[in-house]
Amino acid sequence: MDLTPHSGPRTRTQRRLDTERRLGGDADLWVASASADGAPYLVPLSFDWDGETLLLATPANSPTGRNLAAAKAVRLGLGPTRDVTMIDGEVEVLEMDALPREHGDRFAARTGFDPRAETATYRWFRVRPVRVQTWREADELAGRTLMRDGAWLA
Amino acid sequence: MDLTPHSGPRTRTQRRLDTERRLGGDADLWVASASADGAPYLVPLSFDWDGETLLLATPANSPTGRNLAAAKAVRLGLGPTRDVTMIDGEVEVLEMDALPREHGDRFAARTGFDPRAETATYRWFRVRPVRVQTWREADELAGRTLMRDGAWLA
Repeated sequence: MDLTPHSGPRTRTQRRLDTERRLGGDADLWVASASADGAPYLVPLSFDWDGETLLLATPANSPTGRNLAAAKAVRLGLGPTRDVTMIDGEVEVLEMDALPREHGDRFAARTGFDPRAETATYRWFRVRPVRVQTWREADELAGRTLMRDGAWLA
Repeated sequence: MDLTPHSGPRTRTQRRLDTERRLGGDADLWVASASADGAPYLVPLSFDWDGETLLLATPANSPTGRNLAAAKAVRLGLGPTRDVTMIDGEVEVLEMDALPREHGDRFAARTGFDPRAETATYRWFRVRPVRVQTWREADELAGRTLMRDGAWLA
């Protein structure tokens, strides 16, 4: 884990930098979704980040694919359990051929996985963050909110 | 990460051993829950394992505390994203003083956190695994199910 030496809670500016670095470079994140009748689901997935939205891909008929298409709501966990960024997001569902080709190429290059080449029917799920919270341990719970209602806090 | 050298998919026996080692020794896991109206929630929490059930503690009025108390269903993610164990479980809710003291002591010793000493009202959430799946990467998706309907597969 790439923890810097522990010297008290990070500033909001530092947390934002650390969060954007993870968004720009991490391979995977945890994707939590729920069915209409309230059954929780969770899987790790690869992702891309364009500076404003995250891009995921999963089979249309998987639990995550069905939940995201129905509810349009997701909660993402990025980083190891003691250096997390939690993202609540709104989901836009796109069929494979509805995403500009260069975006799909970028996703495939970053993740090493091209869902457009699969025989199963995949969909793209574009996630726009609404709330972002970043903390390591209990001393960072205060000040953990970096984005609220879709806007980064100053 | 404590990955052994990659030499093809692990056997079920090896996955079970690796899973029980994580259950017995890891500090935290990811806890996915859902509200009655289908809003997903996700947080990392510390846990204990007694060989048959996992023990969690979180504030009664937190989103996770409310969701687990209402739905009695949880999905847990253990390990890093490319070496995961996913656990679907049934939840039993216990007030702080309803758990035998030695179980609480064991939880506090393992996690370094004693929810009985908090001023906020915490609850214990005892999770009995119903389904357990363990995999690292795509080549381990086949054979990932280690427990079904609460019984370890032979």
